[in-house]
Amino acid sequence: MALSKKPVTGMKDIMPEEMEIRDYVIGVIKETYKSFGFTSIETPCVENISNLNSKQGGENEKLIFNILKRGEKLDIENAASKEDLIDSGLRYDLTVPLVRFYSNNANNLPVPFKALQMGNVWRADRPQRGRYRQFMQCDIDILGEPSNLAEIELILATTTTLGKLGFKNFQIRINDRRILKAMAAYSGFDENSFDTVFIILDKMDKIGIDGVKAELLESGFNADSVDSYLELFVGVENAEDGVGYLADTVGEFLENDVRQSFNEIIDSVRATKSSDFELVFDPTLVRGMSYYTGTIFEIAMPEFGGSCGGGGRYDKMVGKFTGNDVPACGFSIGFERIVLLLMEKGFKVPSSKKTAYLIEKGVGGDMLCDIIARAQEERAKGNNILVVRMNKNKKFQKEQLLAQGYEEFEEFYKNPLK
Amino acid sequence: MALSKKPVTGMKDIMPEEMEIRDYVIGVIKETYKSFGFTSIETPCVENISNLNSKQGGENEKLIFNILKRGEKLDIENAASKEDLIDSGLRYDLTVPLVRFYSNNANNLPVPFKALQMGNVWRADRPQRGRYRQFMQCDIDILGEPSNLAEIELILATTTTLGKLGFKNFQIRINDRRILKAMAAYSGFDENSFDTVFIILDKMDKIGIDGVKAELLESGFNADSVDSYLELFVGVENAEDGVGYLADTVGEFLENDVRQSFNEIIDSVRATKSSDFELVFDPTLVRGMSYYTGTIFEIAMPEFGGSCGGGGRYDKMVGKFTGNDVPACGFSIGFERIVLLLMEKGFKVPSSKKTAYLIEKGVGGDMLCDIIARAQEERAKGNNILVVRMNKNKKFQKEQLLAQGYEEFEEFYKNPLK
Repeated sequence: MALSKKPVTGMKDIMPEEMEIRDYVIGVIKETYKSFGFTSIETPCVENISNLNSKQGGENEKLIFNILKRGEKLDIENAASKEDLIDSGLRYDLTVPLVRFYSNNANNLPVPFKALQMGNVWRADRPQRGRYRQFMQCDIDILGEPSNLAEIELILATTTTLGKLGFKNFQIRINDRRILKAMAAYSGFDENSFDTVFIILDKMDKIGIDGVKAELLESGFNADSVDSYLELFVGVENAEDGVGYLADTVGEFLENDVRQSFNEIIDSVRATKSSDFELVFDPTLVRGMSYYTGTIFEIAMPEFGGSCGGGGRYDKMVGKFTGNDVPACGFSIGFERIVLLLMEKGFKVPSSKKTAYLIEKGVGGDMLCDIIARAQEERAKGNNILVVRMNKNKKFQKEQLLAQGYEEFEEFYKNPLK
Repeated sequence: MALSKKPVTGMKDIMPEEMEIRDYVIGVIKETYKSFGFTSIETPCVENISNLNSKQGGENEKLIFNILKRGEKLDIENAASKEDLIDSGLRYDLTVPLVRFYSNNANNLPVPFKALQMGNVWRADRPQRGRYRQFMQCDIDILGEPSNLAEIELILATTTTLGKLGFKNFQIRINDRRILKAMAAYSGFDENSFDTVFIILDKMDKIGIDGVKAELLESGFNADSVDSYLELFVGVENAEDGVGYLADTVGEFLENDVRQSFNEIIDSVRATKSSDFELVFDPTLVRGMSYYTGTIFEIAMPEFGGSCGGGGRYDKMVGKFTGNDVPACGFSIGFERIVLLLMEKGFKVPSSKKTAYLIEKGVGGDMLCDIIARAQEERAKGNNILVVRMNKNKKFQKEQLLAQGYEEFEEFYKNPLK
């Protein structure tokens, strides 16, 4: 078999220019989240296949990279289906592994546990421009905190990080699965059809209120329910206090606690935020994953069409592993999109002085020692020193080095008078 | 299928205490290598199976985690062997991917290209204490530099990094495949049997010179050759200048260039090193991989039984992908072992002030806002502030927080007089 120079389909090599930005973003993220009391953890990239197929991952479960059994366990002759051949797979997100990690280690973790995870995930999606089958996710989660302090801290930590990376004028859209449900229940939809209703509602920003209406009617929902439902959205739009309007309108369908807690999140974040963004109630925000149980949120960047991260509360997932529910809330930042935006902006990473020493070919012995000793001294002072042999085409070499950020050059010749 | 709380066999969850050290080590490594002009790159964790099985990986090729084909390409019914079922696998090292990366991107890379890679690799080894099937590798490589400047810079960069991490009194053992070969040729071994001879020689530190002698004779080698071979090692041991003794003894079997370049590496590193270690010529150093063509080196830590990293020159590997050889030399630092040693030492990561705000349950509204606003101010100053609800057992909570490095506490009550 011939060696292939290309990466596997749908995955990419990352070049030095992009890596510099990635490393910088990782540094800012880790430092900022640490200042909020988050601690890093890591789980293996490989997970038991039963965990990956546990219905927590929604559509992503169809996109798993499966790993073949090894040794005697692999019995190709008698394998009837894929399931007989595999025992594990590459993780498609960091939430399922986190919940497994927490279930496995809860006794040795603080309460609440504030986790930061940065790691690759894999999805065998159809390759398309700008979307890759391996990509970095960056999640913060708080487990064991039932109060809205979790939501407040998650939103503040994420937005502070975005601010430090130079983003402004973005929006955090916030909603609550319980508000979504209250609105649907008030309008007379049956609980069994909520998911169908929400999938249609989720298209609001693409097809508008008329499109949503048409699709709801097409799906056979009662016209009165549809009208009453859509009126709620118009009402929120026109109200000064959208949450208040809704709560007053739907009445007993929404618990008072939810309203109060939701407002507290909005008020606290607005009062204490340290970067330039808007927190807005968006009753059309759905978030795909069925595991969310309460608050949900999403980052909307003007520079970037779609969402640039999101999250929410998922209080019932730990229970799937342990039998005991643990309150949980997380926020995932769209790492790859942030890097892409910074690259497109021409963002330059702040860096120490970079100097290149160009040494003529043939320089060796004591003279080489002296040059390297000098480089070592400069490095000890915190400067970046590249020591390289001078190329025949010195002019071109310097142009290349300039492009890599080397601003100063020193040249060393065998015969210094040259 | 039930959900499994444990990680997959042979892989581990990484807890916050270890992650803190890992993140710190990664930071020191990246900063130091950057000061030597290395730039980070990344390749996908998944590689084409033909590249992984290209005979560059030696024994590691038996330990590959194979990835199942997907969609229509997967034809279980007609699959005769493993090869029909898979198209890719998890990388088992960073060298094969680097060479593929270089072959794919050489036109857009500087000459020489100094690459830093930090990433996970996977080997389905038999699980054993302290060795995992997923582990981090950390490699620096210089491609396109034929002179010994590559070796000098690699050794200096690696040892400077180890020094910054607090390691001292370690050894860098250095040898050259061409010296190994010259010694074997001089002693009358046939070139075809060199690999067998070297595999036995490699056991010198375990079975001693008598053991090596016995095994060489057992393998049917000529007694005169064996005697003459082992005399060389005794001679080096007793010589003041081991390389000089060898070169003089084996004469034409070793090119003069090799001797001069080898000595220049030793002299330059000794003269310019910035940390406390010994560079020693070790004629018994073999390094397993058959791809090495010149200098080879290894880190020996007194605190740690075996090797703690190593590398060497492999000038013929790029040619396997492109048809054109490119000089290449690399040094891999034993990341996992370094982390293990620091953990065992009880190493504490330098950190900014960590304060925990404990808020009584029920505190909300404006008061919560004020507390969070204060936390935000402190964080903006670079301090780490954890904002949590006060547990019923406040004493225990504080003990836990102390163990996590929180030294100061502030308590907030609904009724401040409490």
